Amino acid sequence: MKLKDLLLGRPLATADEGAEHIGPSAGISIFGLDALSSAAYGPEAALTLLIPLGLAGIHFIVPVIAAILFLLTIVFFSYRQTIDAYPGGGGSFTVASENLGAGAGLLAAAALMIDYVLTAAVGISAGVGALVSAFPILHPHILALCLLILVVLTLVNLRGVKDSGAVFLAPTYIFLGTLITVIVVGMARAVAAGGHPVALVAAPAPPPAVELLTWWLMLKVFASGCAAMTGVEAVSNGVTAFREPAARNAKLTLTIIVILLMVLLAGIALLCRAYGIGATIPEGPGYESVLSQLIKAVMGKGIFYYLSMGSILLVLSLSANTAFADFPRLTRAIALHDYLPHVFILRGRRLLFSHGIYALVGLTAVLLIIFGGVTDRLIPLYAIGAFLAFTLSQAGMVMHWKKQGHAGNTWKIFINGFGAIATGVTLVVVLVAKFTSGAWVTVLLAPALILVMRGVKRHYEAVSKQIADAPPIAAGSIGPYVLVPMDRWTRITRKALAFAMNISSDVEAFHVHADHSDDTLEAAWKTEVLAPLQALGKPLPRLVIYPSPFRFVVHPILEHALELEKQYPDRLIAVVLTDMVVAHWWQGPLHNQRSELLNFLLMRKGKGRIVVINVPWYIEP
Amino acid sequence: MKLKDLLLGRPLATADEGAEHIGPSAGISIFGLDALSSAAYGPEAALTLLIPLGLAGIHFIVPVIAAILFLLTIVFFSYRQTIDAYPGGGGSFTVASENLGAGAGLLAAAALMIDYVLTAAVGISAGVGALVSAFPILHPHILALCLLILVVLTLVNLRGVKDSGAVFLAPTYIFLGTLITVIVVGMARAVAAGGHPVALVAAPAPPPAVELLTWWLMLKVFASGCAAMTGVEAVSNGVTAFREPAARNAKLTLTIIVILLMVLLAGIALLCRAYGIGATIPEGPGYESVLSQLIKAVMGKGIFYYLSMGSILLVLSLSANTAFADFPRLTRAIALHDYLPHVFILRGRRLLFSHGIYALVGLTAVLLIIFGGVTDRLIPLYAIGAFLAFTLSQAGMVMHWKKQGHAGNTWKIFINGFGAIATGVTLVVVLVAKFTSGAWVTVLLAPALILVMRGVKRHYEAVSKQIADAPPIAAGSIGPYVLVPMDRWTRITRKALAFAMNISSDVEAFHVHADHSDDTLEAAWKTEVLAPLQALGKPLPRLVIYPSPFRFVVHPILEHALELEKQYPDRLIAVVLTDMVVAHWWQGPLHNQRSELLNFLLMRKGKGRIVVINVPWYIEP
Repeated sequence: MKLKDLLLGRPLATADEGAEHIGPSAGISIFGLDALSSAAYGPEAALTLLIPLGLAGIHFIVPVIAAILFLLTIVFFSYRQTIDAYPGGGGSFTVASENLGAGAGLLAAAALMIDYVLTAAVGISAGVGALVSAFPILHPHILALCLLILVVLTLVNLRGVKDSGAVFLAPTYIFLGTLITVIVVGMARAVAAGGHPVALVAAPAPPPAVELLTWWLMLKVFASGCAAMTGVEAVSNGVTAFREPAARNAKLTLTIIVILLMVLLAGIALLCRAYGIGATIPEGPGYESVLSQLIKAVMGKGIFYYLSMGSILLVLSLSANTAFADFPRLTRAIALHDYLPHVFILRGRRLLFSHGIYALVGLTAVLLIIFGGVTDRLIPLYAIGAFLAFTLSQAGMVMHWKKQGHAGNTWKIFINGFGAIATGVTLVVVLVAKFTSGAWVTVLLAPALILVMRGVKRHYEAVSKQIADAPPIAAGSIGPYVLVPMDRWTRITRKALAFAMNISSDVEAFHVHADHSDDTLEAAWKTEVLAPLQALGKPLPRLVIYPSPFRFVVHPILEHALELEKQYPDRLIAVVLTDMVVAHWWQGPLHNQRSELLNFLLMRKGKGRIVVINVPWYIEP
Repeated sequence: MKLKDLLLGRPLATADEGAEHIGPSAGISIFGLDALSSAAYGPEAALTLLIPLGLAGIHFIVPVIAAILFLLTIVFFSYRQTIDAYPGGGGSFTVASENLGAGAGLLAAAALMIDYVLTAAVGISAGVGALVSAFPILHPHILALCLLILVVLTLVNLRGVKDSGAVFLAPTYIFLGTLITVIVVGMARAVAAGGHPVALVAAPAPPPAVELLTWWLMLKVFASGCAAMTGVEAVSNGVTAFREPAARNAKLTLTIIVILLMVLLAGIALLCRAYGIGATIPEGPGYESVLSQLIKAVMGKGIFYYLSMGSILLVLSLSANTAFADFPRLTRAIALHDYLPHVFILRGRRLLFSHGIYALVGLTAVLLIIFGGVTDRLIPLYAIGAFLAFTLSQAGMVMHWKKQGHAGNTWKIFINGFGAIATGVTLVVVLVAKFTSGAWVTVLLAPALILVMRGVKRHYEAVSKQIADAPPIAAGSIGPYVLVPMDRWTRITRKALAFAMNISSDVEAFHVHADHSDDTLEAAWKTEVLAPLQALGKPLPRLVIYPSPFRFVVHPILEHALELEKQYPDRLIAVVLTDMVVAHWWQGPLHNQRSELLNFLLMRKGKGRIVVINVPWYIEP
């Protein structure tokens, strides 16, 4: 397992559990990347819709971002309260289902699952957008680059939470450092030049205005810009990942993240207006991201430019990491309520809920392929899920405080209530403004997910009922009839036969005679099995030979076992299969497929009295 | 299993085997699609390289195609002889390994595997190229369309050979019908107009000449055009799929295919010259396939145009079907020689070697993603594999006739020898001319595949040695110690416990106490197990309870089993796991993951004396 260890890290013993908890500095990169990196695509999403207004459009970015910052402040105070109230991790799913009922909880669950998948997809696609801006030659390979980054992220994340934090620390701080430098330098130049600084590298001039400003357009711009707020909820979901005092550390982390995000958004908006930088058409040949134009304008196209663009690429791609950290926790929480397959509760090699990671990776890959890895096409799907989760969570918090009934809760109710109304109104705005550009996908997907989750729950309940009320154990019946499929007389088949004779006196070896060049079994059976057993006076197993001209092996064995099951209506039929255990993982695909297929078919076609026994054989390295 | 049946077809009984054989008319579509559809991208690949010569370049297509037709004739006669000599299926792998030794056989095997994967990839990408020519709006979705077609093809092919033939019949004949109509009408117009017909829809004028004709360029053009010959070998690989007399039917099919291909190639070359139609830049925004321009020029852009383009899309995509039909047969043949995992010998539900199909689909998807679904980038990789296989096969046939030593074989030796030399020279030309544009990938990949195949063979031989020379069976030791993991007292755990007591008098139930709300097992154990057994005077099983505060369940059981294995050095430890058998396939992911993980870990970590027993429980629908 050497290569796997190298790629995925050494398996952790269960006692290491406590050591995986983190503090605020790691928390900023793990739970904050999603929120902070939104600064790279949120303003751009808004500016893209302003392209038809020409140069005049760029000026409108400032009031739009101001409105978004106001909303962000409300949401920030709301989530601080959530962390206090739910130190065990207050994801929208938990808050909504505990306070608003199972229906609202399921809606929140569906919204969050969609949201996390889009977090991963948008983070990666926007990162590739930055890369393509810096190296236009890579333009034709957008999707392949997206999928490559997804693979790298998956490997990094399968190594475990703490290792991931270390990987993400440096890029986050370089990203913040360079971007804040650009903002400070750019603002200083703008002030020095009386509001009209000269760009070091001029951005492409905005196209001439072809539309006029309408309220409808401003609503759409605001709805797009709201993508800048996604990710703020991540900290409140992951409180349990923090070191003690967990709630305090989590709140501190959230505060730092929100302040940094506000600085970035405000700075980008003001600089865009000062330098006259607008968006370029996302799929056009001359596409260049807003941040790329901005950094070039302020700092020139030198080493600093490539350093910042590199950190943007990394941070954007790795912002997907918020999803990798939270999606598996979410699916586990849902599975513990029986709404998702229990496999999401299982922990893998590195104490991670690895199946949650697999599901996230699969869904993200599908989204990236369908939308060709273009951020602008993914944004409309994104905001819906995020704001639906915001709204349900805040509304749930209102009920939470009300239930408590303390007199001092009025202020808390007001904050969460205001948050719920503000995000709820925004949700409606986004839904209406973005419905035809893709939000309808989310609108269809959420109910579909809810139906699936309800179906899973119903199934588990039905099965639970079927197996309940077991009668007391009865007197033992006669022992099983044991069937040992045998190709040749080897050390493996010898071990299988020995075990069979150990558990029953009624043993049959079954040989499918497919290869006519190999007639050694009958001779070996006489000298190696019958003769020694006769000498010992033991009961003798039988050898049944079945000719199979077409080299089929699996089906004759299956049919014989089913035949035996019919023939002995009062006994269990135990089929002994051998299982090669390989010394190296890459030898895995070379063995056992036949016995696995047989195992599967015996289980599936059996009528309830076939039992399969796996006898392992260890291959020496 | 209803949905699966609908998608993949009803499982076939093994007795249906004979009914799956086909005649020439179905053979043309199944084994000929690859060869015939090459007409759609072969001339285009050559013309693409002639773009820098401007209008003058288009004239050189005629001599290039003439050279290719000459080569095709040689190869045709060579393969007729192969079919006669190998009525059991004379793929290059069989012919080369039987006549030139194992090394040449492996080289042929590697070449063919690469060739088939590229057949699938090029077929699909060229089909999407046709689609995009007809509907330029789809241009940004090339890769997604390619992957969609791959999925559809996979489903169609998992239904079985005969059904596939039916699906492919109509598109093949519409493709041939429309294209031959275009050729006949176009030639008639050209003759009527004295060699200078007027196009109904004018093709874009070729760009001005920027290069002069060189021998090197002509070599490269010829090397690219050779892609038009790929697929001709398919019939000789698949002789066994034909109805008796198989060899005659196969030869008839091959003859028809080659004649049709020659008509198409010659017609396209002549019409391109007459109408002055050249290639457009493959990845440029104004890309339009040569056939699209040609059909528009001759027939106008009406219903006929869309019908022909539709059939080209279908036929090109479905030409990948040659790979689906042959790749699994090839991997099976290699696996029978122990050079590939034996799983490729196993047959799935529809009597197909389904694992070969899975491997093909996976590799094709990877190629399509890496090369962005662009035919022009795939072509250089393609021809190498095909011509390497051609050469090895013909050279093997020369040795085959020599070994026979008949006097009448001189003529046969001459034909195959001439074929070997001609294709061998072409191979070198393609290799040199295309090395830097992608042929180097094949040059690296083939030895890598050979190394893998040798490694697989070595492994199987080593294992075979390890398990050989089994000693005679010994006297039975004491029965196994049986461990039954038990969460609650249900009908399932009752069944598992009953089986355990059936095979041994030493039984232990092991309860991981993870969920503190569920304390029912201890009480049930007393009333439902101990009490009735005491009344019957039977030996009593033990109940061991293990507290697990973190809700881990799998690892405590694993460690306990390993502990027991150490504790009883002279006994086998049998662990009884329950296995839920679901009524519908979609319920599968809801169950058994914990027991499957435990099964895997017990096998892997056991020291040789742990045996796993699967007791099934059937969930009622």
